[in-house]
Amino acid sequence: MQLATSLQQIQPSYIREILSAASAPGVISLAGGLPDDATFPLQLMEQSFSELATNAKLFQYGNTAGYAPLLDYFKQDYQLPASHDALVCTGSQQGLDLIARAFINPGDTVVMEAPSYLGALQVFGLAQANIESIAQRSDGPDLAELESCFANKDITLFYAVPDYHNPTGICWSLEVRQKVAQLCQQYNVAFVEDVPYRELRFSGEALPLVSSFCPDNSLVLRSFSKIATPGIRLGLVTGRSDWVAPLNTIKQGADLHSSVPMQAVLLDLLSHEGFQSHLDNLTGLYQSRYLALAKQIEMKLPQCQFDAVDGGMFLWLSLPKCDVYALAQSALEHGVAVVPSTVFYQERGEVAPALRLNFTNATEDELSDAVDRLAKVLQLHC
Amino acid sequence: MQLATSLQQIQPSYIREILSAASAPGVISLAGGLPDDATFPLQLMEQSFSELATNAKLFQYGNTAGYAPLLDYFKQDYQLPASHDALVCTGSQQGLDLIARAFINPGDTVVMEAPSYLGALQVFGLAQANIESIAQRSDGPDLAELESCFANKDITLFYAVPDYHNPTGICWSLEVRQKVAQLCQQYNVAFVEDVPYRELRFSGEALPLVSSFCPDNSLVLRSFSKIATPGIRLGLVTGRSDWVAPLNTIKQGADLHSSVPMQAVLLDLLSHEGFQSHLDNLTGLYQSRYLALAKQIEMKLPQCQFDAVDGGMFLWLSLPKCDVYALAQSALEHGVAVVPSTVFYQERGEVAPALRLNFTNATEDELSDAVDRLAKVLQLHC
Repeated sequence: MQLATSLQQIQPSYIREILSAASAPGVISLAGGLPDDATFPLQLMEQSFSELATNAKLFQYGNTAGYAPLLDYFKQDYQLPASHDALVCTGSQQGLDLIARAFINPGDTVVMEAPSYLGALQVFGLAQANIESIAQRSDGPDLAELESCFANKDITLFYAVPDYHNPTGICWSLEVRQKVAQLCQQYNVAFVEDVPYRELRFSGEALPLVSSFCPDNSLVLRSFSKIATPGIRLGLVTGRSDWVAPLNTIKQGADLHSSVPMQAVLLDLLSHEGFQSHLDNLTGLYQSRYLALAKQIEMKLPQCQFDAVDGGMFLWLSLPKCDVYALAQSALEHGVAVVPSTVFYQERGEVAPALRLNFTNATEDELSDAVDRLAKVLQLHC
Repeated sequence: MQLATSLQQIQPSYIREILSAASAPGVISLAGGLPDDATFPLQLMEQSFSELATNAKLFQYGNTAGYAPLLDYFKQDYQLPASHDALVCTGSQQGLDLIARAFINPGDTVVMEAPSYLGALQVFGLAQANIESIAQRSDGPDLAELESCFANKDITLFYAVPDYHNPTGICWSLEVRQKVAQLCQQYNVAFVEDVPYRELRFSGEALPLVSSFCPDNSLVLRSFSKIATPGIRLGLVTGRSDWVAPLNTIKQGADLHSSVPMQAVLLDLLSHEGFQSHLDNLTGLYQSRYLALAKQIEMKLPQCQFDAVDGGMFLWLSLPKCDVYALAQSALEHGVAVVPSTVFYQERGEVAPALRLNFTNATEDELSDAVDRLAKVLQLHC
C-alpha cells in the first residue's frame, strides 16, 4: 500500500535515534524527558493493584469519556464550571492528537512558540497544518510578534506549554499570561494549554493557568506521567463541553476508551493521603539535581549561558557558535546524550546553537560526569 | 473552533444511544458486544497485579511497538516470519484507526462486506474513505461481486471479519478464504483481517486465517478484549514490516505507546498454565447460551430465521417485513435492547429487516425472557 499524503511529510525522528543510542552502556543520558523511575509512587499504588482482581467491572468495556469516579474527582479538583467537560486520554499526547484531528483541516494555521515540543510538531505535521512560529522570550512568547500574527492571519489555535516549557524550561510571567489570554479572546484564537510539568515547581510562585483568564476560549491538556507514572498512559483534556464532545467522538474510533483499571489506580493514588508528600519529595529531588547541574555548568562551561528554571525537567544551554548537530553526535561518542536545538524548530535554518539538558533522570554524580564530558566536546567543536 | 471536515460527516452513533438506554433497570440487553464479566480470568491475573509494584521499569515510558517480552511472545506464538512485525495497540480498534490514517487519503476506496462492523464504518468514515459494500453470503462475501469490484475500481484495501462476523456471526468457508486471498493478490488489494472473535469457536473446524494464504498482502488485527478483558485495552497488528512501520510512526503521535503494566499482565495471562482451561470454559458457556437462545427463537419466533453460528458473540435474526428501526425502539420500551440491521450498513436504503442479538452477556433465563418480550413486539410490528 502507498502511504497516505499526511505521512509522506513526516521526517524520521532524530530524537528517537538519539534516545536509542543513549541507552548504550556507559552513556549518560540527558537527552530524554524521563522522570526518575526510582521516584514512582508504587508503594502508594500497591494496595490498589492488589485489589484490582476483586473488581470485575473495572475490566469490562468502559465509557469513552473516562471512569466515572475519576471524572468526578477531576471535575471537583479542577473546579470545572457546569459548561465544561473532561475527557480522560491515553496520555496527554492523545489529547493533543484528538484536538488536531477534531479541529484542523490540512492547510489550517496553528501557532506555536519556537522552539517547541516535538510531539506537538509531529501531531500538527500529521494533521498537515501550516505552523506559524513565534519567538520565545525569557517570560513567554514575543507579544508583538504574536499580536501581529493573530491580526494578519487566519489562526485556528495557539498551542503552548507555559509552565517549565519543553525544551527551554521557561515559565510565562503573570503579565504575559493575561495578555495572551486577552489576545486569544480579541482575535478569536483557541488557546491549547499543555501543562505536563505544572506540578513540578520547585521555586518561584505558582501562577494561574493562562486558560483561567479565557476559560471559554481554551482547552487544557494535563498529564499524569510526571506526577504518577508514564507507563500507565493517562492524561486529561478539559474545556467547554462543545469543544470536548468532538474529541470524545474521535476517541471512540481511536481506541474506544483508555485502560479502566489504570484509571481506578490513578484515582486511588491522587486521593491517597501520602500523595502530597510524594510530590514534595519529587520536586525536592529534582530541585537538588537541577542545582547540581547548574553549578557544574557554571564551574566547567563558562562559555555557555542558561536562564535559571523554577521547575520542570529541562535546562536550555546556549552555546558559542558551532555546528550543534555535529556537537551532539560527538557528545554521544564521548558518552553523553543531549538533544541539539535544531530539532525543536519547524524551520531549521538559522537556529541559535543550544542543547536541551534533562536533569531528572541522572544522579548528581552522573550530572557532574556528563558536564565533564560536555566540556571536552565543546573544546573540540566551539 | 469549527469542526474539521472529516468530523462533519460523522453521524451520532445510534448504538451508543441504545447502549445507554440498555443499561436502564429491568432492560435485558442483547444489544452490546460485551463479554460476560463473570468470566474474566482475574484469578489468573491476581498474582501479576500484586507483583506490579515491585517492577518500576514497567511504569517508565515504553517502546511504541510494545513491551519487548510480549512482542517476543507474539512473534513466536503467531510464528511471524522475519520479514513481518508486530505492534501492540490500545485495543484492536486503535490498530484499525492507525491503518486508516497510514494508508487512506480522503476519497480513496475501501471494500467491506455489508453489513459490517460499526467501528470500522466509523474509522473509514473519519478517514473520508469511499466505502464499497459487497453483499455477504452464508459462507463469506459474494465472490463474483468482489472480483468485479476489484477489477473495475481502484481499491486500497479490503477490510473483513472472517471469523464469526460482527454483526452476522457467519464464518467464511475454506474455499472463500483461499479465493479472497487469491483475488487480493491478483488485483493488488491489501487485505485487513480483523479476528477479535477467532478464539471464541465452540463448534465446527478451525480454519486458517485468510492472510495465511496471502501473508505479504495483508495485515492482521487481533483483540484481547474477548479472551482476556476489554478494560485493559490491548490489541495487536501484525504484517509485513514496511506496512507496520508507518503504523508505529503514527502511534508515536497518537499515544506514544500502550499501557506497559497492562502489557506485562497480559503476557503473564497468555503464558499462564490455566489459560487454555479458561478459554475452554468461556467457549463452553457461550455455546450453551447460544444454544439456549437458538432454542427459544425456534420455539417462540417461528416467523424469523437465522443461520446457525459456530462461535463468536452474535446471532443475526432475519425478520418478516417491518420497520426494523421502530421495532427496535419498541423492543426497548418492552424491556429488551437489540440493534436493528439498518445501522450496520453504509447505505441504509433497502436493508432487509434483521436484528443483531448478542448471547454472551445474558444468562439463559434472561435470554428466554428476552425472546418472550421480542415475541410480543414482533406481534405488534410485523
